[in-house]
Amino acid sequence: MWITLGNIIDGKAIAAKIKAEIKKEAEAYKNERGIPPKLSVILVGDNPASQAYVRGKERACAEVGIASETLRFPSNTEEKRLVKEVERLNKDKTVHGILVQLPLPQGIDAHNVLETVSVEKDVDGLHPYNMGKLFKNENPMFIPCTPQGAIELILSTGAEIRGKKAVIIGRSNLVGKPTSMLLLYRHATVTICHTRTVNLPDITREADILVAAAGRPRTITKDMVKPGAIVIDVGISRTDSGLVGDVDFEDVKDRAGFITPVPKGVGPMTVAMLLKNTLKAAQATS
Amino acid sequence: MWITLGNIIDGKAIAAKIKAEIKKEAEAYKNERGIPPKLSVILVGDNPASQAYVRGKERACAEVGIASETLRFPSNTEEKRLVKEVERLNKDKTVHGILVQLPLPQGIDAHNVLETVSVEKDVDGLHPYNMGKLFKNENPMFIPCTPQGAIELILSTGAEIRGKKAVIIGRSNLVGKPTSMLLLYRHATVTICHTRTVNLPDITREADILVAAAGRPRTITKDMVKPGAIVIDVGISRTDSGLVGDVDFEDVKDRAGFITPVPKGVGPMTVAMLLKNTLKAAQATS
Repeated sequence: MWITLGNIIDGKAIAAKIKAEIKKEAEAYKNERGIPPKLSVILVGDNPASQAYVRGKERACAEVGIASETLRFPSNTEEKRLVKEVERLNKDKTVHGILVQLPLPQGIDAHNVLETVSVEKDVDGLHPYNMGKLFKNENPMFIPCTPQGAIELILSTGAEIRGKKAVIIGRSNLVGKPTSMLLLYRHATVTICHTRTVNLPDITREADILVAAAGRPRTITKDMVKPGAIVIDVGISRTDSGLVGDVDFEDVKDRAGFITPVPKGVGPMTVAMLLKNTLKAAQATS
Repeated sequence: MWITLGNIIDGKAIAAKIKAEIKKEAEAYKNERGIPPKLSVILVGDNPASQAYVRGKERACAEVGIASETLRFPSNTEEKRLVKEVERLNKDKTVHGILVQLPLPQGIDAHNVLETVSVEKDVDGLHPYNMGKLFKNENPMFIPCTPQGAIELILSTGAEIRGKKAVIIGRSNLVGKPTSMLLLYRHATVTICHTRTVNLPDITREADILVAAAGRPRTITKDMVKPGAIVIDVGISRTDSGLVGDVDFEDVKDRAGFITPVPKGVGPMTVAMLLKNTLKAAQATS
């Protein structure tokens, strides 16, 4: 088999196509229902990274005709105040998606706030009920955005997933575990690695599909990658030289069959999937 | 390192010890509260295997002083009738655990019935909320019984799980996936294999801990096992020669470090964990 190596997966372009579709559907929704799909974001405190993410989400909503609002709370807000706000949003029929921007300040039980979000408006897919439906592979209404985006990028390569070896580095609820399940349901043989994994390079070298989601900048190097592998870089670290992924892109790129860059790889897809989930939430209302 | 091979894990004896503990606690519970912990089982139709399982559960409850009742319904029972029964049990304060024996007859949406079970009485741990808490590693109230039993057997060997390679064959909601997560949380590097896995023996031979839960009798042979591995056989198939596991026990036993037999391996532990979950459910009530 002849393989061209070093194909770069253009997450930004793929996300743009998906957003164009969502824009059409959001318009149709508004024409039919009289109101646009709407996302409400709860932002607590002044974490600069969170502020930047939320601005990005607002911009993306505006682009595709999804209404959005950001409800800002000071970092000393009490948990019960947030719970009350979520309950209010649950009842508000003009709000279709609710997103609680993480991390929440210390002292607030994030579980409690997240579990208050109605499962029908849980566009981040992090409510235990929705995570349970994903874990059981029972047609979950919402799948967490980054894993969903990562899978779309893998599918964009046209490669067969069934029977392939997939290795996921990282076991977070936001990325590692859900991505593992999505690959498992597409019939990959899935290995989940993490900080306690022994001889990581020996394992990653076996991977036909390698998903790096450890948040350790540039730690995946050429010698850890199987020639021709699909390499999806979910890691994002802010360094002095800008945003940096878990993969040493320049080192790895000519060995990988397909590889996502950072930025413009998984990042734009995460936002696109959030828009998709919000549209879906709106469409599911009667 | 010197390893004795061929150690047989006596699931029946380990389960007996756990049951003795539960018996004490169930007695204490009854003395304090005036009523015993109680399990209600819903059994639909006349599947002989299900009938046998339910009898086993009743016997085990009686042994440890947990009250039990089996509510029998004909196989043509309507789904809404079952939902109504579950709702009644949810409200009954003398009932602490509710178990819907699977499989349900065709035509009944098992998801719908299972999701009706109150998460506080879901002693099988199969409600999406409880599965989601397990998947998120957020202190789930109930963990499915067979995976919980399998982990107890692995722990009984005294072997370190952290950093070890665990390979799980099977990706069911009842066994494969929850067992994978429990091993992951104990810091194993976890690989999930299934019917679409290519070159299964190459993968299983790397396993320090091998969990067979495919339901394919005697398909795990010596050449697939790493010398000294812990082999947990969750498969149970009824054959002409009696109950048979996924592992060819006689073939594998002298190569494994530790191995569970079938029967008297994982089976008794599943029942013990059901009792444990029922006691826990009772103790959690105010």
